[in-house]
Formats: sequence, structure tokens, C-alpha cells
Amino acid sequence: MNQRLDKLTSWLIEEHIDAAFITSTENVFYLTGFHCEPHERLLGLFVFQNEEPILICPKMEEVKVRDAGWNYRTIAYTDNDHPWEMIHHAISQYDITISILAVEKEHLNVGRYEVLREMFLETGFVSAEEKLHSLRLLKDDKELKALREAAAMADEAIEIGVASIKEGRSELEILSIVETEIKKKGINKFSFNTMVLTGENTAAPHGIPGLNKVEKGNFVLFDLGVVIDGYCSDISRTVAFGSVTGAQKDIYYSVLKAQIAALEACKPGVRIGELDQISRTIISEAGYGEYFTHRLGHGLGIGVHEFPSIIDSNNLPLEPGMCFTIEPGIYKPSVGGVRIEDDVFITKDGVEILTKYPKELIIL
Amino acid sequence: MNQRLDKLTSWLIEEHIDAAFITSTENVFYLTGFHCEPHERLLGLFVFQNEEPILICPKMEEVKVRDAGWNYRTIAYTDNDHPWEMIHHAISQYDITISILAVEKEHLNVGRYEVLREMFLETGFVSAEEKLHSLRLLKDDKELKALREAAAMADEAIEIGVASIKEGRSELEILSIVETEIKKKGINKFSFNTMVLTGENTAAPHGIPGLNKVEKGNFVLFDLGVVIDGYCSDISRTVAFGSVTGAQKDIYYSVLKAQIAALEACKPGVRIGELDQISRTIISEAGYGEYFTHRLGHGLGIGVHEFPSIIDSNNLPLEPGMCFTIEPGIYKPSVGGVRIEDDVFITKDGVEILTKYPKELIIL
Repeated sequence: MNQRLDKLTSWLIEEHIDAAFITSTENVFYLTGFHCEPHERLLGLFVFQNEEPILICPKMEEVKVRDAGWNYRTIAYTDNDHPWEMIHHAISQYDITISILAVEKEHLNVGRYEVLREMFLETGFVSAEEKLHSLRLLKDDKELKALREAAAMADEAIEIGVASIKEGRSELEILSIVETEIKKKGINKFSFNTMVLTGENTAAPHGIPGLNKVEKGNFVLFDLGVVIDGYCSDISRTVAFGSVTGAQKDIYYSVLKAQIAALEACKPGVRIGELDQISRTIISEAGYGEYFTHRLGHGLGIGVHEFPSIIDSNNLPLEPGMCFTIEPGIYKPSVGGVRIEDDVFITKDGVEILTKYPKELIIL
Repeated sequence: MNQRLDKLTSWLIEEHIDAAFITSTENVFYLTGFHCEPHERLLGLFVFQNEEPILICPKMEEVKVRDAGWNYRTIAYTDNDHPWEMIHHAISQYDITISILAVEKEHLNVGRYEVLREMFLETGFVSAEEKLHSLRLLKDDKELKALREAAAMADEAIEIGVASIKEGRSELEILSIVETEIKKKGINKFSFNTMVLTGENTAAPHGIPGLNKVEKGNFVLFDLGVVIDGYCSDISRTVAFGSVTGAQKDIYYSVLKAQIAALEACKPGVRIGELDQISRTIISEAGYGEYFTHRLGHGLGIGVHEFPSIIDSNNLPLEPGMCFTIEPGIYKPSVGGVRIEDDVFITKDGVEILTKYPKELIIL
């Protein structure tokens, strides 16, 4: 089996857990190399202590299973099949009793949980999430390579976006130019819906791009990422168009100072929550505390928002191999919003900043 | 309260259910008008028999709650707050005991379910899904208007896509042209990742658009949709480039015949499963049964894949107000894939086909 599956199997044995049933797209991909968006259909991977693992997926995805190099048992079901019965039949051929089953409690829904409880009467359920988080937390060289490539492409996307800003152009026009140019490079997947916001709309941290046009005196805020070989990037940059007021400059440089201070604090051993505190203190002391309405950042990898959360209360120490975002922001109605976000990778001695697009205030 | 909330409240009273906790983006939108993609953060709506409902959402989304016209209680939490404690506190101010709580079992995850079980000891959990499905199943005039607009825009997208096919152009180039032109019209949301496939790639029903270039003799398969006022469209068309072989034609017209036969069978009272059977029988009799690897279609509305499933075993009778897709397909390796998909709305007398792009085989 592959090393990742081996580690999960060892954990099952150590913890006396009979099997794990993994159901999220991300973790199935991590463990099998097979990527599938099943929508409401069932996707799952049963892993046992000593038996061959079983992958369950919609029939129409089966060809991708083989392409991904998965050589173990696969149950591929059509929309007219009963996948749970097929699973039950397959497992009943193994000489095992499942007394404890690990599941992804943050992913598995209650309906499927109830089916499993009926299928495995007397079985206790434990969470597989902590183990999967810890497996995925520290990225290996192959993962770092993909993360670097995804970050470099995000830098290019920002460059394209900034170059395409023109007076009177709408958020959606700029967004389309960015996505079109990136797709020309063969990238078919963005980490999330690309965001280009301008004017008042920048003050909404999850604003929706529309037909608002760039005007003199506006901020233009980009938040975007691409997926390369299954790994995400996530970058934010804010630029000014035409001119900036003192109030806008003050916000911009407060965010930048907070962001750089957190970056500079990154090295193994530092408590994760300290990074959030460092940025938040700077922004609060500048008088904008109430306008920094989200956490400092989030883990990055197969998921664009994954473990660990870069939040005040997180006591986990930084370790080489961790990858996450640092993205303070200030969103002040009637002045505008600024967010500056980089992807970072913790190294033995400090940090590698994966996204490299400049951060000095650009006034176009 | 709005009519939809009223209906849910009446159901709670009739069924002696003390409260409902609604957590999916789609159902929260249906009941409140507030649309929020919370990612891993908590989003929820508590609805009671006689007390004011409570909406729980991330602080950064709060402004959108007000914009959506939600005038009842809202708990907006930051990443440093403890939303479950805030919920517990708010509910404890009401003079109620929650002995039975309805939840979305197909959406709520086991982790949150366990938190709720701890918060409401002795509480029984029932499914809110069937009720929500039945509420959302029959679309009202306002919903039909949005569905029609979304379908008309999907037709335009296909028109743009077909017009942009050129020898040597890649799937991603064509896809970008479609999305760019649609975004110029102010559409900021697609129902799902737009799909443009050509050549061998058409034989993968969930193929991924890439740098494959259109060549003479290829099929080009489009599957796309847009979201307008919160409602989705979903259309597929397949065209040929340069020339077609007899084998390709045979596949195309088998799919078209199967699709039209199912459309013609649509009227109130017909068992949903019959539609799937009608199409599947035609395709099987043409010798392609094994290559039609998915169900006939799916419900369409706020969700791009919603209740009901258009599947052989579905015994629900068609009713005026239902909206769903009819999308048979044949995916034969080495020959190619064809899918033809329309969105339909069941009327008093029959069916309104919302997507109207022509279906005769186009050879460009």
C-alpha cells in the first residue's frame, strides 16, 4: 500500500480501531490519489487493519479511479444500484468484526451515520479527523512542489489582474480576463470563486463581484487561487486606482504592517495563536480592531481552508512542513477594504513565503 | 414571518416537533433569503413553534443578512467567539423545552450532531429533509421566473460556445470565451464548473476540460448552467466538428430519441421513474445500455442537483410546479460521448421546456 495508507493502518492497529470509513473528497484523494466530486452521491474508502481497502464511488467515475493508479478493491455503483448493500456484502466477505469504526465526524452526515449504525450494530464510532489532520498537516517535498507551483500561478494571476485594471472596467470584466489568461496556461481549477472587488464593495470581506466599475479613488481587491496537482493557492492583494486618501493609506499600511509582523514571527516552536495576536494587536492599536472581522488565516493544501486554523486560541506550535495563509484585513464602510494575503510554508529555520507578488501600495 | 417560514412552523406544530435547526446554504436561503457559503464555519437557522427564529452566521456575513431583508434575531459570531454557547444562551431565554428537534440529516455532520445532543440532552432528532424537499419541490411564479431567466442565459451560453468552436482551439479556451461573455452580462455565478469537452474526453461523463484541441471528426460536448436570483439552470448540448462517422451519428440520434421520448412523456400524474425507463429502454434497444451510466436527471432549483432524483425507482408522480433536468447520455470509448440535457417545468397540462437551444445534430 502507499505510505499514507500504511500510516493510517498503523494508527488503526495502535488505537485498536477495526476500520476507518473516509468520505470527504479531500481525504479520499489524499489516501488514494483519486479525486472525485460526488455531489450528493456516496464516495467512501474503507480501510482495515489487515484486509484490502475498499473504495466506493459512482460508476461514472470508475475510469478516473484506474487513471489515479488505485489498484485495490473498488465498488462502482450506478444510480440504480444500492451502494450500501454492496458495501455490506463486500465487508461480510472479510473475516472481521467491526467493533470500533473511525469516521470523519466533520464530514459524514447524520443520515449516512445512521445507515452505518444500522449496518454495524454495537459498533462504536470515533473520529478519524484528528489523525487525518495530523497526517496532512506536514507537507512532503512532492506536496511542497505543487504548493509552490500553485502559488507562483496565483502571483501571475494577480499580475494579470492588476495590469487589466482600467477606469470603467467592471469587477466581472477584470475577473474574466484573469481567469481566461490563467486557463490558457492549462489551469482548469480555481481554489474558490475568484474575487475582484472595487469601491464600496471592497469593504465586504466576502463581497460578490458584479458590474461595479473601477473609478478614480477606488481600491481594487483581488482574492484568488488556483489548484495544481490537487493543491491550492490563495492570495489577496489590494491596489488603488487613480489616487488614495490619507484614510485609505492609513488602512493599507496598517494591514501591511500587521501582515509583515506575522510573517516575521513565523518559525518552528511559535504558538500559532501568537501570529493572530501579533496582527490583531497592530490593527487594534491603529484603531481598526472592530474592522478586522476574521481570523488571521487557515491551513492550505488539498483543501483551500484546512487544518490548522490561524486563530488566537490555537496553541499548536509551528512545525516545519506546515503550510497556511496569513491574511489580515480591514473593512471600513465608506473608506474601503484592504486585505493582503500570502501563503507560507514553515521551514527548519523560519518560513518560505510562497506567494511573491509585491506588497507596497500600488497606485495605478 | 414569510410564507415559507410559516409553512415550516405549521409543520412543527402539526408534528409536535419543538424546533428545527436548518444548516444547509440552500435551505437557509430558501427560508430567509440570505445566501451564505460558510465553508467550514457554522451557518444555521433555528425555527420554533411560537418563538422568534434565530439565524446564526459568521460575523463577516452579517451585512448580507440585513441586505436580504431578514428582520429576526441574528447571532453573528467572529472566529474568536463560541457560536454554540451563543446559541445555547439565546435559546435558554425562551420559555421552551426542546424534546424533539428536526435537523437536515443529509447535511448536518456528525460532529455538530454530537454538540446538539450534548446541548439538548434527552432530545430526539427527526429529519427535516422530507418536509423541506416537499416545500421546495413545487416552484411558485417567482421561482419559475428565475428558472426561466437562468435557462435562457444557459441557451445564450451554448450559442456563444458553439460559435466559438474552431479547429485547434482548446476546451479551456472555448470555456473561457463562454464564461467571459456571460460575465459581461453581469452573471457572477455558474451552477457548477462549466464543462467543454472534445474528442476522447467527451466519453468521460464527468471529464475535466483541459488543453485538448478541437480536431476534425470530434464531438464537442457542453454542460453548463448559470445562477440567477439564486436559481440554477443546467444544459448540455453536443455538436460535431468537421465531419461525423456513422457510429457517431448513431449515438447522437439514439440519445436525442431517448431525450425527446422522455420529454414527451412529461405530464402530471406520470411516475417519475417511468421517464428514466423510457429513455433507458430506447438507449438499450439501440445497443448502448451499458454506456448510459447515470440517471436520467435531477431536480433543479436553488440546488443544481436537488430533490427529486429522476431515477427508475422513483415512484413519485409528476405534479405541476416540479422542475428538473432530462439528460440521457451515451459515452462510448473510442467513438465519443453525447449528452443532451434540457430543464423542464411541469405544467397543469404537460411540460414547459425551459432550455430552448436546438437539438438537431449540428456539424460545424
